[in-house]
Amino acid sequence: LRASAAVVGALITRLASQLPEGTLRVDTEVLEAYGTDASDGGMHLPQVVALPQDTAQVSRILKEAQAAGVPVTPCGTRTGKSGGSLPVHGGVALSLERMNRILEIDPIDLVAVVQPGVITGALMEAVEAQGLFYPPDPNSWPSCTLGGNVAENAGGPRALKYGVTRDYVLGMEWVLSDGEVVRVGRRTLKGVAGYDLVGLFVGSEGTLGIATELTLRLLPLPAYVQTALITFGSLEQAAAAVNAVLGAGLIPRALELLDAVAMRAVDGRPIPFPADARACLIAEVDGATEAGVEAELVLLGARCEEAGAKEILVARDEGQRARLWEARRGVSPGLRRLTPHKISDDLVVPRSKLVEAIAGCHAIGREEGLMVATYGHAGDGNLHANVLYHPGEEPAVERALGKMLELALRLGGTITGEHGVGWAKKRWLPLEQPAPLLELQQRLKRALDPAGHLNPSKIFPDGG
Amino acid sequence: LRASAAVVGALITRLASQLPEGTLRVDTEVLEAYGTDASDGGMHLPQVVALPQDTAQVSRILKEAQAAGVPVTPCGTRTGKSGGSLPVHGGVALSLERMNRILEIDPIDLVAVVQPGVITGALMEAVEAQGLFYPPDPNSWPSCTLGGNVAENAGGPRALKYGVTRDYVLGMEWVLSDGEVVRVGRRTLKGVAGYDLVGLFVGSEGTLGIATELTLRLLPLPAYVQTALITFGSLEQAAAAVNAVLGAGLIPRALELLDAVAMRAVDGRPIPFPADARACLIAEVDGATEAGVEAELVLLGARCEEAGAKEILVARDEGQRARLWEARRGVSPGLRRLTPHKISDDLVVPRSKLVEAIAGCHAIGREEGLMVATYGHAGDGNLHANVLYHPGEEPAVERALGKMLELALRLGGTITGEHGVGWAKKRWLPLEQPAPLLELQQRLKRALDPAGHLNPSKIFPDGG
Repeated sequence: LRASAAVVGALITRLASQLPEGTLRVDTEVLEAYGTDASDGGMHLPQVVALPQDTAQVSRILKEAQAAGVPVTPCGTRTGKSGGSLPVHGGVALSLERMNRILEIDPIDLVAVVQPGVITGALMEAVEAQGLFYPPDPNSWPSCTLGGNVAENAGGPRALKYGVTRDYVLGMEWVLSDGEVVRVGRRTLKGVAGYDLVGLFVGSEGTLGIATELTLRLLPLPAYVQTALITFGSLEQAAAAVNAVLGAGLIPRALELLDAVAMRAVDGRPIPFPADARACLIAEVDGATEAGVEAELVLLGARCEEAGAKEILVARDEGQRARLWEARRGVSPGLRRLTPHKISDDLVVPRSKLVEAIAGCHAIGREEGLMVATYGHAGDGNLHANVLYHPGEEPAVERALGKMLELALRLGGTITGEHGVGWAKKRWLPLEQPAPLLELQQRLKRALDPAGHLNPSKIFPDGG
Repeated sequence: LRASAAVVGALITRLASQLPEGTLRVDTEVLEAYGTDASDGGMHLPQVVALPQDTAQVSRILKEAQAAGVPVTPCGTRTGKSGGSLPVHGGVALSLERMNRILEIDPIDLVAVVQPGVITGALMEAVEAQGLFYPPDPNSWPSCTLGGNVAENAGGPRALKYGVTRDYVLGMEWVLSDGEVVRVGRRTLKGVAGYDLVGLFVGSEGTLGIATELTLRLLPLPAYVQTALITFGSLEQAAAAVNAVLGAGLIPRALELLDAVAMRAVDGRPIPFPADARACLIAEVDGATEAGVEAELVLLGARCEEAGAKEILVARDEGQRARLWEARRGVSPGLRRLTPHKISDDLVVPRSKLVEAIAGCHAIGREEGLMVATYGHAGDGNLHANVLYHPGEEPAVERALGKMLELALRLGGTITGEHGVGWAKKRWLPLEQPAPLLELQQRLKRALDPAGHLNPSKIFPDGG
């Protein structure tokens, strides 16, 4: 699939005359920057980086690249954990980062219209300033883009109550592999005219087209939020508390679990964790009335105590709340400080299998002689099992990851809850999905990208 | 597309030897029953009715029908309002009604596994008996099937807070047009492995395949529910109250609006409406704590009073609550009693355009000399504009429906919020979706049903 330097050179010449200066970059440091992402998946140099500023430019680049037979790999700020934006066959790295304007926020219709390069956190802040709420909160929200969230169907802690990115995308402007531009979806909350192309395209990891404008659903900002850190003497108790809370009819907006390794990685950064705690939950409830939120917090606390909680610390103010979440977001970088490398797995199991899954991941780590940390969105069964390693341990890491995914599937789960398959997990997709199902999906891929040049060799194991 | 009697006869002979006795029916009264639905779309006789009892039989029927070139139209209990289950080219009417078993309810994983012929209300009752909750509540829940809900992506009053059918389908067993059986989706709450085929298939109106098993997401049953009837002296006030409630950060689980005609249609059945009310809202709040639900009801009432509510009547007990919803569900049959015929339109507008949309529908009714009633899910902008008519008025009805849909689109809305396009609205789909978008969807249809025999001539205007 890799195009020769001559072919790419000719494409650059053709495009340069149609695009503003500075749209195409071939300097080494730029190529290197776009050759990696947050997946620890190595360096995959593109042959040219394209930085379009509007839909017409995106369309033009796709059209000419398709005509020239040069692969195109879309990307945002490359915070993805599955390597979806790695240009594994060189070609064009097409970044949407310059299309970063919030076009509209409508407080009555509860809708925002944005370009795909808008940073997720920037939209959160902008709508919160108007008393509105954009719930999806992937851990990387301070730096990731909404277009990337759409490509991966990103989740986050609040998914438990509020759902994932897909639940907030009402409509999109979408550029197909040959440069054709269509609008899919709508601006209204409901709508069933025609096939749900938004449903198909969100989470398609850049393989079925590129979003150039997003119409997003907003909610009113919950007026009251309470956040608590709840510590336990064992992982089993913490997992039992998760089920007890949900069984009481409560749906907290977040219910995050950290095991002892994860707690150690962030201890004191910025908050200290009780030394004898073996697991903790970060629970957050929200609502429109103070009385309601207080009552939910009391009920949640009671259920956790019955499940054996050692201590329940409620954030007294916004500053304490922020520090609690800073600690939670610090787990991934904190673990990275413990060893030179880490790979984050993203498995999901039915909630009843949480304890078994966590214990199983730690057992696999012991078998392979690797440190393993598990944490994540316990409320919806989504665990980030992190394998920490040193150079030279790659074969053991590979075995451990495979065993963990097999464990998740054996327990009735899936190999990826919110990070995507991309490049990092494609070799394992056949563990979850049999050949006829893979073939069915590739039939759709061929229908929308017959030449197969849009983000090639991603998701499907025999893609290239 | 219609197959000759000889071809269908040969198909019946071939199938009869492979299926249990009684699976295939050709008696006139059965053919007539399966030739109509709740769309007022006329009689379209199938040539044979198939009543399979398991997935293998569904697969067998599709395979043999495809080989014989006979169209297959799937159906459930035919409560659809857009004619999606009308066998417009004869052939096989394939009903899933005998596949009506609830296979599993898991109170920890919060999952139900059901066959597609299960009545929606039967699942609601079964899970509520275990303290669980299946939110999607299309008006026809006492008689419609879950498979039909999936085919149309059905909504209902609770969609405002809880979303539509698509939000509750985790996984499916799915039979493709050639009889191939695949499993799509998963059992866990989250999961992004591969394309979101569940997203594409839910709402595909029987044109991309047939669901033979559904894995559905459940919630804990909210412990407290409060329901209120709020009357207003004008439609404008009622619509303003909708925006005021949502603007206060409240998301009631339902916020239904009835105009004066709709109220008259159900007056005294079973509850009386104040004679001087020109519009009313039925509002329902729910939650896990009594204090929270009370506080939300107080806040909701205050906002409605500020918007000019005349009276706020809170249901004192479960009986009063049930009667209020009985009245709401009675609107559609109640209107049907006023004239021999009625057609229910299902438009959605951005919430800010509610008043304009309702006033516009009534103006269109006056222009065409037809009685129009508007009611529906005001909280999410989904209005059921009903046109009531007598035989002979069809041309005026056709004009009125077209004008209403054009109005909805002019206001930034869609032609169908939850009923689907099916047969009834296919001629209007091009008003909303331009040719390249229709072509894109038909490319997917051809990829999954190359022969085009599965529910032919539905959704797309040039489909036959």
